[in-house]
Amino acid sequence: MNNYSKTHVAADAQRTELHDTLSLTGAEVSVNTMAAGTEIPFFHSHKENEEIYFIVSGRGYMEIDGEKVELEAGDWLRVAPQASRKLHATTDMTSVCIQVKAGSLTQWTMTDAVL
Amino acid sequence: MNNYSKTHVAADAQRTELHDTLSLTGAEVSVNTMAAGTEIPFFHSHKENEEIYFIVSGRGYMEIDGEKVELEAGDWLRVAPQASRKLHATTDMTSVCIQVKAGSLTQWTMTDAVL
Repeated sequence: MNNYSKTHVAADAQRTELHDTLSLTGAEVSVNTMAAGTEIPFFHSHKENEEIYFIVSGRGYMEIDGEKVELEAGDWLRVAPQASRKLHATTDMTSVCIQVKAGSLTQWTMTDAVL
Repeated sequence: MNNYSKTHVAADAQRTELHDTLSLTGAEVSVNTMAAGTEIPFFHSHKENEEIYFIVSGRGYMEIDGEKVELEAGDWLRVAPQASRKLHATTDMTSVCIQVKAGSLTQWTMTDAVL
């Protein structure tokens, strides 16, 4: 496998999945743009993956286990695998969703880096 | 552990690490804003972590194993653990760096989701 891979996601792309494009081995990443007033049409949870959401632009909210969590540009949200979740866009909203295996990270930054 | 955790990263924050703040267990995520003309002052590689970079705004480049890889807003970059890398900002640049353990993801999206 190459030492790096790169791609570009256009600002108006509706949904882009990066796992295969970038040959990721430790995460799936998707970039999603939703129109104002729309929602993901179902609740879902995960078997083993933690999800990390980043709101790039716009505003919306996540329903998590019956709670409404407001989201705006600059917000970061971790959702545990077993939590039931559904994302709503209040305005046009672009978000990043990172899926990683819960409990998989064993060391990072200063302990994993080699200078 | 809670079913979710949330934080906000201000647009003018210089460096924010999210692992502890969000109680992440499968990734370390940092958000970094660099001034035009600055660079990370050293090359580094990783023992076991894959890095995924997202350029949120601005423009710069990554030196990877002697190659210059241009970066602009909307770009996504995967860097293999063993690659030697150094990030440069050409303009003011905000980027996200996601560290995950290489090879840790075993299933995702349709196979990991429960509807």
